[in-house]
Amino acid sequence: MVKPQKSAASELETIERIRRRVALPQTGGLVLGIGDDCAIFRPRGAPEDLLFTTDMLIEGVHFRRETHGAGDVGWKALARGLSDIAAMGGEPRFCLLSLAVAPWVETSWLDGFYGGLLRLAGRTRTPLMGGDLARAEKAMCDIVVCGAVPRGTALRRDGARAGDAIYVSGALGGSALGLSTGGGRAWRRHLRPQPRLALGRFLRARLRATAAMDLSDGLSLDLHRLCLASGLSAEIGAPPRFPGATREQALHGGEDYELLFTAPARARVPRDFEGVPLTRIGAMRPGPPGAVELEGAPLAPLGYDHFRATVE
Amino acid sequence: MVKPQKSAASELETIERIRRRVALPQTGGLVLGIGDDCAIFRPRGAPEDLLFTTDMLIEGVHFRRETHGAGDVGWKALARGLSDIAAMGGEPRFCLLSLAVAPWVETSWLDGFYGGLLRLAGRTRTPLMGGDLARAEKAMCDIVVCGAVPRGTALRRDGARAGDAIYVSGALGGSALGLSTGGGRAWRRHLRPQPRLALGRFLRARLRATAAMDLSDGLSLDLHRLCLASGLSAEIGAPPRFPGATREQALHGGEDYELLFTAPARARVPRDFEGVPLTRIGAMRPGPPGAVELEGAPLAPLGYDHFRATVE
Repeated sequence: MVKPQKSAASELETIERIRRRVALPQTGGLVLGIGDDCAIFRPRGAPEDLLFTTDMLIEGVHFRRETHGAGDVGWKALARGLSDIAAMGGEPRFCLLSLAVAPWVETSWLDGFYGGLLRLAGRTRTPLMGGDLARAEKAMCDIVVCGAVPRGTALRRDGARAGDAIYVSGALGGSALGLSTGGGRAWRRHLRPQPRLALGRFLRARLRATAAMDLSDGLSLDLHRLCLASGLSAEIGAPPRFPGATREQALHGGEDYELLFTAPARARVPRDFEGVPLTRIGAMRPGPPGAVELEGAPLAPLGYDHFRATVE
Repeated sequence: MVKPQKSAASELETIERIRRRVALPQTGGLVLGIGDDCAIFRPRGAPEDLLFTTDMLIEGVHFRRETHGAGDVGWKALARGLSDIAAMGGEPRFCLLSLAVAPWVETSWLDGFYGGLLRLAGRTRTPLMGGDLARAEKAMCDIVVCGAVPRGTALRRDGARAGDAIYVSGALGGSALGLSTGGGRAWRRHLRPQPRLALGRFLRARLRATAAMDLSDGLSLDLHRLCLASGLSAEIGAPPRFPGATREQALHGGEDYELLFTAPARARVPRDFEGVPLTRIGAMRPGPPGAVELEGAPLAPLGYDHFRATVE
């Protein structure tokens, strides 16, 4: 909601610059570093890999105090992290919360915030184990979620192969529609996204998807990222739309928190999983890494870039 | 640096309210939750416990762009987290960084910030594995550090026993002095605190300290917290002072990042460890939990409360 400004570096470019500076040692249990939904850590002697993700939620950027209830903010903070765990097929283990409290925050807001967060934490068995508290001019929080998968089985962005079919769960554009209308089903979807944890585990353990990620910044940008990570191109048709959402909202709108995944073309992918539709939208192709075509024409990665709007 | 305001709840009270709402399950590897320097997680089948801590650093609250260099901010962000790992006797495994970038932040600042952070990360073998990027009106970051200890051996705040001697490492008040003078050795100490990782491991593995925590918010408040956690009182004399620091700065000044620990009265505690003095300042006593006496008079917990200054 902060207005985009001129930018010297996009989020992708900035992350790439950081990644180049960080030489991840090949020892010490560090399986996967910067650049996927979660980092992967392998504890010594353990049969499981641990997944870690951090996500910020900032007043005036990700939420407004006038329109987003305290409980919605708490729910969404955790939902964003859980969605990253879902994207790798993980099971949540615990979360940590850093919370900066603004002068306008009252005890009732804090109660509502923790109420929303702990409600989702209870439903998904993600106990809050700790964190940090501070004061600041604007309210903001950073959630850390730890999840687990059997050793070596995490779904990653870089596993897609040429010829794999591309799927999305659910219908896209609902969150963007809700943000523009401020009411109805779409608004509720914007406020209370449902992390696809059971679907993620199904994709990992049963379907053996080749790659997956969550749709947090819009299909066009997120599919571009998956293609870049896998070193491939993609050809897709129009994705399923949330009722009332425009084609643009479905293609570029962020915060749907559905899953984007690939599977071998012959894999038997059900039409839905626990009531959530699974729709084949295209296929991975050899070609320039990151290039996406929609109905034969290049699709620009116009989704939400958290960073392009900031750095001058 | 934000001026204290009227408060309805202190940080301790707020954390206690949150903790009461969070029922930590006794299963799933959750060894220790809210209320210590780190949370403790025991991965399935692993011989090590993992420690997790999160720490925010916020423009205008913890640092000023006019006085704190980008490299100092990056260094300090990680040092704060590493100090919590040190307090439990842990060895760092990795870190994650969430960074919110303000409109004034330029690429050169980002380079300096990561330079400071990665320098300390390299020295302490704490690879940066991931994180989040966002934009905000003020710059802020949240560091997550994961450390490890052999199963069941983490130093905690709640292990002190009546009769144990109380020690501090180093000299106190240097950071507060530096903040007031803005120059010299004390200022450098404020800017570039040294997490006592080797000392923490020594306290855990060799000395078998009964309790430990890091001095981040001032001796008076931190010792009060250790006493509360252990259900005891404490009697102390004046602590060792950083050259030039006042008695008040040594007692109540925050951000020294030295270690406060307890050990049986007969334990052979060396006078220094790798050049850092270890000074006996008093003893744990039965009595009202949390009460601290300095030279026979009650010592109020006046250290830095991150939260008292915020909630109206």
